[in-house]
Amino acid sequence: MMSVAVITYHSTMGRWEPNARDRLRQAAMELYGERGFEQTTVAEIAERAGLTERTFFRYFADKREVLFFGQGALRDGFLSAIAGAPASAGPIDAVGFALDSAAGVLTDREFSRDRQAVIAANPGLQERELIKLASLAASVAGALRARGIGEPAASLAAETGIAVFKVAFERWIADGEQRDLATLLREALDELRLVAAGTS
Amino acid sequence: MMSVAVITYHSTMGRWEPNARDRLRQAAMELYGERGFEQTTVAEIAERAGLTERTFFRYFADKREVLFFGQGALRDGFLSAIAGAPASAGPIDAVGFALDSAAGVLTDREFSRDRQAVIAANPGLQERELIKLASLAASVAGALRARGIGEPAASLAAETGIAVFKVAFERWIADGEQRDLATLLREALDELRLVAAGTS
Repeated sequence: MMSVAVITYHSTMGRWEPNARDRLRQAAMELYGERGFEQTTVAEIAERAGLTERTFFRYFADKREVLFFGQGALRDGFLSAIAGAPASAGPIDAVGFALDSAAGVLTDREFSRDRQAVIAANPGLQERELIKLASLAASVAGALRARGIGEPAASLAAETGIAVFKVAFERWIADGEQRDLATLLREALDELRLVAAGTS
Repeated sequence: MMSVAVITYHSTMGRWEPNARDRLRQAAMELYGERGFEQTTVAEIAERAGLTERTFFRYFADKREVLFFGQGALRDGFLSAIAGAPASAGPIDAVGFALDSAAGVLTDREFSRDRQAVIAANPGLQERELIKLASLAASVAGALRARGIGEPAASLAAETGIAVFKVAFERWIADGEQRDLATLLREALDELRLVAAGTS
């Protein structure tokens, strides 16, 4: 009979100890919530996370980036989904695939909720959020045109997709909401079809 | 036989001499186009218009207001149209009435075209424009809820309406476009219905 050595691997960070980026993000969100975004410095975020400022800047360009770094992945997911949609998919179907991809990127409801509270309290951050969403709509319209979809259908489908995203996202982070983002995105897109058809 | 005295009234400003607000607006747009928004002062605008700074401030709070003062009328028109829509009108129909009202407010294509060029050249103005549009969408959603329309239908119809407005407005001010805004708004709304139905 062979004896089997069972080796259990524990990383040096430990299972429940988050990595540096997560620790910095967590520390930043705590401080933004406690004292406000403007009143928080990078030095304070690093200290709260038990890390150095130098480590902070390895992960984030500045304290604002902590709130927005996830949007690159959201955009990439949208554009890949649209480019990879079946050739038979019309503009709104391609947008539906893009929305499905968002649920794979935005997985931390608690963070998204805290992030939204920080942004809602700061006009400069609100403006940046709106600029990012407008730029996302323009990118989506471009990806739809690359599929051969003409104007104004491409821009309308793109703007509509962002509208659906905004509405579903707001519901997802609302107090007490239990349904997942994928479900809420599909519901909002279905509701949009009904609204546009004049049957809702 | 009675003799009829025909009196033709000429205002003291003369038919072809615009009033102070129009002269200030015209002067401001010229200067924003020539030297940029940031580089233009209120004193220069007043001088170009042949008026005093004091007169400028009777009409506009600041030089930015020259670009945005029309949005109050746009918002009022949207909200009145939604409030006054027939009780039988669903959310997208009510939004259609709101869009119809925009064509009565935005009548000067040349000004709108120049304004957009100034805004496109200045990130701070773009942010303000996006904030104004987001706020307009929120107001429209509120007006729809006041008609008894629930969520997310109200927000989706409102965001969709603003998307249609943006797309139609951009077409209206495009070089060489001859069709009027009312036509383009209706076309865009019809196109949106097709897009949402998956038939475009």
